[in-house]
Amino acid sequence: MADEKALIPRSEDFSAWYNGVVQRGELAGYTPVRGCMVIRPHGYAIWETMKAALDEKFKATGHQNAYFPLFIPESFLKKEAEHVEGFAPEAAVVTHGGGKALEEPLVVRPTSEAIIWPIMATWIQSYRDLPLLINQWANVVRWEMRTRPFLRTLEFLWQEGHTAHATEAEAEAEARLILDLYREFMEKWMAMPPLTGKKAEWDKFAGAVRTYALEALMQNNWALQAGTSHNLGQNFARAFEVKYQTEAGEHDYVWGTSWGVTTRLIGGLVMTHSDDVGLVLPPKLAPIQVVIVPIYKTEAERSEVLEAAKRIGERLPSGVRVKLDDRDTLNPGAKYYEWEGKGVPIRLEIGPRDLAQRQAMLVRRFVPDGAKRKTPVSQEELPARLPALLQEIQEQLLEAATRRREENSFRGISDYEEFKEIVATTGGFIYTGYCGLEACELKVKDDTKATIRVIPEEDFRSDTPPEKCICGKRAVYEVVWARAY
Amino acid sequence: MADEKALIPRSEDFSAWYNGVVQRGELAGYTPVRGCMVIRPHGYAIWETMKAALDEKFKATGHQNAYFPLFIPESFLKKEAEHVEGFAPEAAVVTHGGGKALEEPLVVRPTSEAIIWPIMATWIQSYRDLPLLINQWANVVRWEMRTRPFLRTLEFLWQEGHTAHATEAEAEAEARLILDLYREFMEKWMAMPPLTGKKAEWDKFAGAVRTYALEALMQNNWALQAGTSHNLGQNFARAFEVKYQTEAGEHDYVWGTSWGVTTRLIGGLVMTHSDDVGLVLPPKLAPIQVVIVPIYKTEAERSEVLEAAKRIGERLPSGVRVKLDDRDTLNPGAKYYEWEGKGVPIRLEIGPRDLAQRQAMLVRRFVPDGAKRKTPVSQEELPARLPALLQEIQEQLLEAATRRREENSFRGISDYEEFKEIVATTGGFIYTGYCGLEACELKVKDDTKATIRVIPEEDFRSDTPPEKCICGKRAVYEVVWARAY
Repeated sequence: MADEKALIPRSEDFSAWYNGVVQRGELAGYTPVRGCMVIRPHGYAIWETMKAALDEKFKATGHQNAYFPLFIPESFLKKEAEHVEGFAPEAAVVTHGGGKALEEPLVVRPTSEAIIWPIMATWIQSYRDLPLLINQWANVVRWEMRTRPFLRTLEFLWQEGHTAHATEAEAEAEARLILDLYREFMEKWMAMPPLTGKKAEWDKFAGAVRTYALEALMQNNWALQAGTSHNLGQNFARAFEVKYQTEAGEHDYVWGTSWGVTTRLIGGLVMTHSDDVGLVLPPKLAPIQVVIVPIYKTEAERSEVLEAAKRIGERLPSGVRVKLDDRDTLNPGAKYYEWEGKGVPIRLEIGPRDLAQRQAMLVRRFVPDGAKRKTPVSQEELPARLPALLQEIQEQLLEAATRRREENSFRGISDYEEFKEIVATTGGFIYTGYCGLEACELKVKDDTKATIRVIPEEDFRSDTPPEKCICGKRAVYEVVWARAY
Repeated sequence: MADEKALIPRSEDFSAWYNGVVQRGELAGYTPVRGCMVIRPHGYAIWETMKAALDEKFKATGHQNAYFPLFIPESFLKKEAEHVEGFAPEAAVVTHGGGKALEEPLVVRPTSEAIIWPIMATWIQSYRDLPLLINQWANVVRWEMRTRPFLRTLEFLWQEGHTAHATEAEAEAEARLILDLYREFMEKWMAMPPLTGKKAEWDKFAGAVRTYALEALMQNNWALQAGTSHNLGQNFARAFEVKYQTEAGEHDYVWGTSWGVTTRLIGGLVMTHSDDVGLVLPPKLAPIQVVIVPIYKTEAERSEVLEAAKRIGERLPSGVRVKLDDRDTLNPGAKYYEWEGKGVPIRLEIGPRDLAQRQAMLVRRFVPDGAKRKTPVSQEELPARLPALLQEIQEQLLEAATRRREENSFRGISDYEEFKEIVATTGGFIYTGYCGLEACELKVKDDTKATIRVIPEEDFRSDTPPEKCICGKRAVYEVVWARAY
């Protein structure tokens, strides 16, 4: 049985609160393998729902799934110069197999460009084979020193898209298509509205020409990089000699992209919506959307109430994921505690009094300002009311998260003292002009721990961005700063 | 474009034929990593359909998915004595991470008992936590020396079920429930009817009390072990100290099972149904069930034919997976070649003459004795005809495979010369009495390369099994022999 002690509140210790929500929600647990978590059934069910939604979007835009080897020969990782520099320090290396030392060590994939590109090379001969739009659902390993469930683990699950195109413009269009697809998923499914933009030159993916990123603002006003989409130019095509015959009969290198989101999204989901009681899930991603808890004392009450509860569940439209909690081993209070901690959006309580009045007590997990937490609803109305309410809750969560993001976005900041004050007190997304020099970011980072998250996309740019960088030099573009995970 | 040379026929070189079908069907390919294949989009789409069907069955029987670490500390693998003996020789070992030698090497999971049991231990306190029914979809690595696409690869994909129960009887019931579930999947979805039974004592899973297996007969009359389900007794519970409090308040070790099927099933699918032209897929697992190929010469014909083809596709019931092949870069013959090689069950050809007669030419990939390969069908009939025909083909494939298995099952064999003659000529499943001694199997294996596949389940046992083993001693039970992958 769960341990019914209160979580440490967000305001007191955000990091301890986060770990508490993950534990109480039974999303993940620690394991005997340093830095590796176990994703428990409730957490994995959320990931499955995310996967299904993303996979449908990938397929609808012409992508196909495939599966490539877990291992990358060390020499392949070295073929793209920037790529190896970025990933070699984090490598997990297999040196022995079948009881013998290997001639060439194998790296457990930290990302798969270095094994997918040489294989894609064998599938591409002419322009007819392009675009080649591949996605893989897989596990990857990066040897991180400081780890936290979902946010940073040695091994994590993700999808990685890898595409090859005939022209630079098509590759760029693909990278941006995926950026939009991710944004739509985060908004519509996760109710987590990200800020989108381009990474600074020195902050790109190792081997990319351009990296787009989605940054979401957590409740502690830190940013979480929630997904990235890279235009690889011809870098990997050159490193792995991937050429195609053009319609005109010439030979040219293909243009590539890669892009991914990971189980980190579950961490983002937690830190966007959950409260001091525990997990709050947006209905679209909730493995259980409605839980029915029967209340009874006598055996006679029990059979009547259970029958009514069952009937209510069966009458709900088939799209609603409902669970009747008919366990005899727990009292209703313990059940409330468990399902609240697991973030179930709606609870229906049904006891003898409700039966007499042909109603159920509806309790919302997320209660926006002005709404009631508990309302009696007639049993007859439930089949129509619940799907509408789930949709409403989904939208209210997005509204609340968007409002929070906007309230914690500070625009037009050009005075460095003011900048430092915001970072030190509120936190949030700080929009400033920027001189374009890496050294400037390094100094700010040293002073404040804030970093440039992105050069914002058009949707997010300020109407009149500051003409000066916070360092005082002339600004060449606008950037958004935040402390980040 | 595909290379239109004929496959080496099955009768000439079964193994070369198999590789040819896999290549022509674009199911899998070789990679720069020894023993590791890439599962190409068409092969992976088959795996996704298999996964979805199995996953639904697992969930319907109360199992939940979770995800456990890829790495197992070497000391954990050693905790169950038989288990380590079985798997250590095949281990891939990570000795370095983040640029440093590890204090304790990590084994890439060859199967996950040794990491799942210590984690499940933390989830189990009392009888209320039982049964614990967990499944994982994952990649595993076994350092095989001789590999073949799908049948035996260093890395493969699979699902592994791991369950814990309060009683021995429940664990046994679970192991058998899964055996039946696998059998139903193989029959109904794969149209591959397996023989089921128990493995001999010396042929059990390393650490199991009892291993059940499903053995399918391939077209070369070799057996393929297609799935296994193990009753683990209390072996892993003792090794990892997994105890629970009984209803009576005492403490006892839990009882366990584990079970799995792998991407090897795709190899079984190929060797059960495919022919000398290439892949044949049962409709339920075909990523594309119906392909429509338009035929035209002039531009005017093209637009008319394409429009009609599109209309036909749109009018099919939504459950039918249909593809209109409207590529301009290939002629109809090349398209036929490609889709036949990919095993698409039904092709519809539509040209100007068909248009005039409001019909389409329907071509079946699998043609049972007495059926026609090509039939004209009126366009109006197609929406009703196709789903029925797909179901019919599914059943005909199962019938054909079952008939082949029965024709190549030899019962009541007690004369060793006759036994050797069958193995050397026909092959197939050979039912004999058995003395129960391992030495006897070793001698037969030495002489003939045939091995005991299973001690058959009741469904398969002979009415009057021989009273003598082929070695001449008294038989204690019936067994089934075959050469096997």
